Amino acid sequence: MIKAVCYFAKWSLLASLIALLAGTASSALLITLDWATNTRNDHRWLILLLPVGGFVVGWFYLRFGQQVEGGNNLLIDEIHDPKKTVPLRMAPFIFIGTAISQLLGASVGREGTAVQMAGALADQITHLLKLKSDDRRLILMAGISAGFSSVFGTPMAGWVFGIEVLTTGRMRYEAIFPCVLAAVLANQVGDFWGVHHTTYLAGVVPHLSVWGFVATVIAGAMFGVIGQLFAKSTHALSSQMKKRIAYAPLRPFIGGAIITACVLGFTADRYIGLGIPTIMSAFEQPLPLYDFVGKTLFTVASLGAGFKGGEVTPLFYIGATLGNALAQLLHMPITLMAALGFVAVFGGAANTPIAATLMAMELFGAEIGIYAAIASVMSYVCSGESGIYKTQRSGHAKL
Amino acid sequence: MIKAVCYFAKWSLLASLIALLAGTASSALLITLDWATNTRNDHRWLILLLPVGGFVVGWFYLRFGQQVEGGNNLLIDEIHDPKKTVPLRMAPFIFIGTAISQLLGASVGREGTAVQMAGALADQITHLLKLKSDDRRLILMAGISAGFSSVFGTPMAGWVFGIEVLTTGRMRYEAIFPCVLAAVLANQVGDFWGVHHTTYLAGVVPHLSVWGFVATVIAGAMFGVIGQLFAKSTHALSSQMKKRIAYAPLRPFIGGAIITACVLGFTADRYIGLGIPTIMSAFEQPLPLYDFVGKTLFTVASLGAGFKGGEVTPLFYIGATLGNALAQLLHMPITLMAALGFVAVFGGAANTPIAATLMAMELFGAEIGIYAAIASVMSYVCSGESGIYKTQRSGHAKL
Repeated sequence: MIKAVCYFAKWSLLASLIALLAGTASSALLITLDWATNTRNDHRWLILLLPVGGFVVGWFYLRFGQQVEGGNNLLIDEIHDPKKTVPLRMAPFIFIGTAISQLLGASVGREGTAVQMAGALADQITHLLKLKSDDRRLILMAGISAGFSSVFGTPMAGWVFGIEVLTTGRMRYEAIFPCVLAAVLANQVGDFWGVHHTTYLAGVVPHLSVWGFVATVIAGAMFGVIGQLFAKSTHALSSQMKKRIAYAPLRPFIGGAIITACVLGFTADRYIGLGIPTIMSAFEQPLPLYDFVGKTLFTVASLGAGFKGGEVTPLFYIGATLGNALAQLLHMPITLMAALGFVAVFGGAANTPIAATLMAMELFGAEIGIYAAIASVMSYVCSGESGIYKTQRSGHAKL
Repeated sequence: MIKAVCYFAKWSLLASLIALLAGTASSALLITLDWATNTRNDHRWLILLLPVGGFVVGWFYLRFGQQVEGGNNLLIDEIHDPKKTVPLRMAPFIFIGTAISQLLGASVGREGTAVQMAGALADQITHLLKLKSDDRRLILMAGISAGFSSVFGTPMAGWVFGIEVLTTGRMRYEAIFPCVLAAVLANQVGDFWGVHHTTYLAGVVPHLSVWGFVATVIAGAMFGVIGQLFAKSTHALSSQMKKRIAYAPLRPFIGGAIITACVLGFTADRYIGLGIPTIMSAFEQPLPLYDFVGKTLFTVASLGAGFKGGEVTPLFYIGATLGNALAQLLHMPITLMAALGFVAVFGGAANTPIAATLMAMELFGAEIGIYAAIASVMSYVCSGESGIYKTQRSGHAKL
């Protein structure tokens, strides 16, 4: 009984603190990225600075940030195998790096940024309070939950993501209490700071028909295949760049130059930045069938070249536009299929099908649950044994 | 690629077959229990036959059903440690046993019945097709998902329940694909047979306030404590009965006589059977604060004495009425707290907090998610290391 009271007091306090830090950091990020996106839209010439911006961020990481370059992978690794406190500088480095990526037009996301800021800030608590490594693991997991929850306004997905992302095909509940508190409260902190999250069109979910079921299974498999392709291409480009270009800041410089040339040459502005307007219209009207290919290429180039930012918002874009395309090919409702792609490409590439299903339910309503569960599980099974996070452990073979 | 196609073909077929069997069996059960409940309500004197009915069912189990007496625990055990095919007779035995319990007024549920029928029917497939024990485990898990999904009309909860219930504090994804298909399709089979599931009032979920958060945490802890008390009392009474009354059919005879006397002596009709009307009114108006105690006593007596049926519907009743009582004490909305108790007492006692959260979202809308997650996780952590299923393995200490 006393043990239980101590447990709850301790973790309620720690989770609240993590939520406060993570929710505040995510709010600052969202406000900054809104500014960066608007500024870039108003001043298209900013894309010309992309190579230089990439070089500068790369130089700072090389000079002062080598310990924190692992990003999300470093956090996952520390949870599995705790070694030492994540340096606090991870937070400002990834914050500024992501803001520059977005301002100048790289195609990157924001969940990695929020998660890294949350993880780095949370880990300072373990350092200050001299907590043991068992507690440290739980704190880092709660940090991941809090960062993910507050950056997307999806506490349910954030909660489960923090415990689901560590290992493919296995979930352990040791951090379930700190994670749920941190996720729910971090989202509240975002509300307190007045941050608004994007809302997407949630259409009427049709009654499950035989064809609807078959189409969802087919689409789910495609979502997984594309998720796998995305993860493998990003890793492959990144390792090729590292092998061929020894001086790190030169990689985003060259990558940035190619991206800039392509954006200007092909008027491909719709594939850079977060791409929220295109994601939103993927729920509303038929889009070109190749949009998901464009976004995949620009994101693989951006992340593979070393631009800073997350993977998940581009995965939402790729998924929503692929869903939109599949809806046209399979004669299914566009809104439904865009929503399924939105969550399921992410669920497959991150190996987090339950978090993806919960995200669908909280963003688009509980009725989408059965479709989202089938699509996310199909995507998970079809996305191969590895995913976007290299340090994620393998708990169980999928097939 | 070929491996993947074979995997999907094989498991789509097997999961569909399991769904067909389980969905049909659950539909037959629901129709039968409706009849049994209506008949008992029309003929109150039937409660006088409860001791005799208990004796007859006990005699049949002793004479012909000793191999299948383990029920849900036998299924869980076979999944962890596959030995031999679950006898087909488990299905008719538990079906008829539960119908007699309900007709004559024992306080038992129906999920155990649906799960056992589904498991026994599914396992005949493994026997016919001579499948190996790895496949057999997945089939039994899909059977649990299908049975749970179709008896409550909750495919999301059924899906996760099948993979979450085996081990406390750990989930493995090996059966995630068969389970999601079996759960979704079994529910569709129920729809096809025209079965209607109870719908409960889903009130407006308030914005999370500080007090709302604190009240949910407190209520969640209470839900877990009561869930633990329920599980421990049932196990304790059952083992005392076995120790003191050697002849098995005599246990439900004596238990039934006491229950009958109490029902007639205290006019306690509201605590017998499934108790759906009382559950429904727990969402709508203040009920006596002691209702959850009454239902706990009658259910512990019924299950402990050996009456056949499930635990989960009584747990819904106990949870909804306890939530109703706590709403009055904590000045919270009755509908919200009844809904939280409904899922969270079950989630704690069965050690399935994620299935419980999903159930809340699919029954009461996605907005209840954050409340349900907090309540279910609190209940899970506070419900002790064991639960209603004795053969559930322990994956991780909770505190």
